[in-house]
Amino acid sequence: MIKNAAGRMVPETINGIQQIPYMGIGKFKPKGNKTASAIPSNSNFPDNGNKLVNSLKEALIKAGLKDGMTISTHHHFRNGDLVANQVFDIAHELGIKNLRWFPSASFPCHAHLIPYLEDGTIYSIEGSLNGPLGKFTSEGGMKGTGMLRSHGGRYQAIQDGEVKIDIAVIGAPTADAFGNANGLYGPSACGLLGFALADSQYADKVIVVTDNLVPFPCIPWQIQGNYVDYTVVVDKLGDPEKIVSGTTVVTKSPDRLLLAELTARFCDAAGIIKDGFSFQAGAGGTALSVALYFKSIMKEKGIKARFARGGSNKYLVEMLNEGLIDYILDGQTFDLDGVQSMAENPRHTWTSPFTSYNYHSKGNFADMVDVVILGATEVDTNFNANVVSHSDGYLLHGIGGWQNCLFSKTVIIPLPLFRDRIPVVRDEVTTLCGPGELIDVIVTERGIAINPLRKDLIEKTKDSGLPIKTITELKEEAEKICGKPSKPVFDDRIIAGIKWVDGTLIDVVRQLKK
Amino acid sequence: MIKNAAGRMVPETINGIQQIPYMGIGKFKPKGNKTASAIPSNSNFPDNGNKLVNSLKEALIKAGLKDGMTISTHHHFRNGDLVANQVFDIAHELGIKNLRWFPSASFPCHAHLIPYLEDGTIYSIEGSLNGPLGKFTSEGGMKGTGMLRSHGGRYQAIQDGEVKIDIAVIGAPTADAFGNANGLYGPSACGLLGFALADSQYADKVIVVTDNLVPFPCIPWQIQGNYVDYTVVVDKLGDPEKIVSGTTVVTKSPDRLLLAELTARFCDAAGIIKDGFSFQAGAGGTALSVALYFKSIMKEKGIKARFARGGSNKYLVEMLNEGLIDYILDGQTFDLDGVQSMAENPRHTWTSPFTSYNYHSKGNFADMVDVVILGATEVDTNFNANVVSHSDGYLLHGIGGWQNCLFSKTVIIPLPLFRDRIPVVRDEVTTLCGPGELIDVIVTERGIAINPLRKDLIEKTKDSGLPIKTITELKEEAEKICGKPSKPVFDDRIIAGIKWVDGTLIDVVRQLKK
Repeated sequence: MIKNAAGRMVPETINGIQQIPYMGIGKFKPKGNKTASAIPSNSNFPDNGNKLVNSLKEALIKAGLKDGMTISTHHHFRNGDLVANQVFDIAHELGIKNLRWFPSASFPCHAHLIPYLEDGTIYSIEGSLNGPLGKFTSEGGMKGTGMLRSHGGRYQAIQDGEVKIDIAVIGAPTADAFGNANGLYGPSACGLLGFALADSQYADKVIVVTDNLVPFPCIPWQIQGNYVDYTVVVDKLGDPEKIVSGTTVVTKSPDRLLLAELTARFCDAAGIIKDGFSFQAGAGGTALSVALYFKSIMKEKGIKARFARGGSNKYLVEMLNEGLIDYILDGQTFDLDGVQSMAENPRHTWTSPFTSYNYHSKGNFADMVDVVILGATEVDTNFNANVVSHSDGYLLHGIGGWQNCLFSKTVIIPLPLFRDRIPVVRDEVTTLCGPGELIDVIVTERGIAINPLRKDLIEKTKDSGLPIKTITELKEEAEKICGKPSKPVFDDRIIAGIKWVDGTLIDVVRQLKK
Repeated sequence: MIKNAAGRMVPETINGIQQIPYMGIGKFKPKGNKTASAIPSNSNFPDNGNKLVNSLKEALIKAGLKDGMTISTHHHFRNGDLVANQVFDIAHELGIKNLRWFPSASFPCHAHLIPYLEDGTIYSIEGSLNGPLGKFTSEGGMKGTGMLRSHGGRYQAIQDGEVKIDIAVIGAPTADAFGNANGLYGPSACGLLGFALADSQYADKVIVVTDNLVPFPCIPWQIQGNYVDYTVVVDKLGDPEKIVSGTTVVTKSPDRLLLAELTARFCDAAGIIKDGFSFQAGAGGTALSVALYFKSIMKEKGIKARFARGGSNKYLVEMLNEGLIDYILDGQTFDLDGVQSMAENPRHTWTSPFTSYNYHSKGNFADMVDVVILGATEVDTNFNANVVSHSDGYLLHGIGGWQNCLFSKTVIIPLPLFRDRIPVVRDEVTTLCGPGELIDVIVTERGIAINPLRKDLIEKTKDSGLPIKTITELKEEAEKICGKPSKPVFDDRIIAGIKWVDGTLIDVVRQLKK
């Protein structure tokens, strides 16, 4: 075990692969060249561009599925995904063992895979472990060790050759027989397919699976058929109602509305909401409300934003259509309004983890966002934050684009001072996902703490009338009400690693003591 | 020298680089992996995404310009390009020597560079040598040896690591300071930037030069800023009237109109023009007329095409707008109607040499086109064709997408039986660019010859009333009128190599005897 630059003890290897301990922000300098797949030749592909095979099983067999391989899927179908489960049903049926599943994220619907983790079909999962898979892993159920990466970190890991994908299976709401594909149309429409971009570019074999085959050309092509080996038509990729919400609902909770209002007022006081600014708010109830407060401030001031980053939803689309935002740069659509807008409005532009988040690039879009509103399960008095585990030690969430968004110019985390009577401001976060030096403001219902590094924000908001406090004051206030929280009790066994955006290891998660 | 599979003598090396002789269609099997550029890190790029430097000179110096480097530019500005000339003016001013210029094509405007070829600033050009540069090279003026590739072959050569670009200079009609760029808007609008795609992805250093800087985000991004090192604003990228024609004019020549009519009638008789078919015609007068004949046949039959490949122009855009074509898949726009349609109509889709033409891919779009109408300078009795040199031996044209288009399902070359009293059907083409087995039909004003390999076409058109003849009959007819043509007299020195789509050497061009 080695102590990394954040003071966390991390192992030298995970699943037999050498790890680089986190070295600080921007300190690790990558060496060497990007990875690249084998040079293919048109002469090995059908003249007429028709790559259809009869079934997913046939495609997996043709792609050479065998023990120990790494199989990737994307999570644009969210909790409605039926693709990953089908892939491992087939692997199980074929008696394949020790697979590494490399999803861009996993969801509760993938609890279906727990028997395959138990019987050795799947050895490990590298990707978020939301809900049941996280609980199962925290209790020691997974044979291998998990590895959690941000969306950008996943692109980086594939690009840099850290993770070699043997077979990428890309569920595509619309595709042609050549493999051009998009997420915009069809019964399983999910908006876009950016999370599968790196998989298409770098995997050894690429299978596109669709339930909506169209004649060539499938336009637009979010996935390019030139990267695709086989195409397959299946009955159903996902449960539409679980892929995108019919409508997104803003929180009615007075507590969350207060958090949102304080956040928006803080941004206004700090001079962030000005003509041509840019912002990113997530899809959670609080974040949605922040966007609505932004909207009313913008209308009042008669200004507009140059761009907003999505996840998109009805409210962001309304702002775009009302001319309050020039562009939505979108990574995933959270409701039907988002999908429709992306299909129809060229100002609602699809992005990818490459353009938006890849840290091993010549810059990325996250750098250019003026303010981002993020969530967290815990923060600590050094402004470090946790998004993957709860204070009871259970690993229950993925990182998503969260780490990548920390590079925005101002990072604000609104969160309730305690949840279920457990304070969220701690002496030390259970799992370190984001270094405090990148987190600028913590907004709670009982006060706002500004990172002392951001003297500019402290200065700008000192006469705002907002309840500015120190982070220690917030912690003490919570503990006065709820008492000092206890720490979870862990075994020694590491059940998951947490990567930083540059591929170094920032922390690990341990198995819970029975 | 080695005799390749087409019977042409080719050298083992060119400019010191080992060559693989042409092995036959689909016979060469590439080994190994694609190349890849060095892994960059965001930490080495400005936080705010602003990569602007003061001048192209400063950008070239920062990019490390030095003797012997390979510098690439694209040809979307065609004969109006001012970028390449500026680059080499700077190199000359800095006293840099022995550069390899690797344009996607060169044009007569680049005759400006002849003094730099003479004084050693430029050692060799790999790319088309249209007009004056070709004449200069044919007469022995270039120190190194030229290398001509198709658009797809250029992508393949970069992707496979055959050509390593040190610095790519990408002229961009619209760009933001991060380097996102497109060709759709601005005073130098040229439509798209696909010919610079591989350069952006694989070059060591990438410079985007624009005369129309917009605030981030420049949408759409045909070139992604994440690949770009430096951005520069200059006064002027090109001469607009030479970049795109104000309007495209259909031929009024009765000879060419006859060729076009015969071509269209042949396609109709052969059953090619049917509902959902696809076609590609070029930008020349004859090809434009073919498209118009197609249009009237389609209207008469009440059918539409699924897609047409561009080069786009007013006539193709009209067909799209009238619903006669579902999609234009466009590689370059030849007139203002093309540019405007691409900017406004999502059914007018930009493509790249990667999607359309790269032979070292998992298939490409060229394979899927039902019929393509191409030009040639000469054909021979084995249906081999030449597009780069004239019968007098001068190398005066590039290959463009021509070789790549030969993979379409039916390839038709309409051409006059003789030009300036020199027959175009020869015993053997002066330079071999396309193997006869891929060329299906030669249409001349005095008869149509069908490749004996295409028994299906012979059968379908035998009762069509069209003047079907053998290729030998056509040759003899021409020689009866013009006499047996003489052959050019060459020196031994090789002045340029001609690559096949897979990177093998299909032929060479020699210096003309003084």
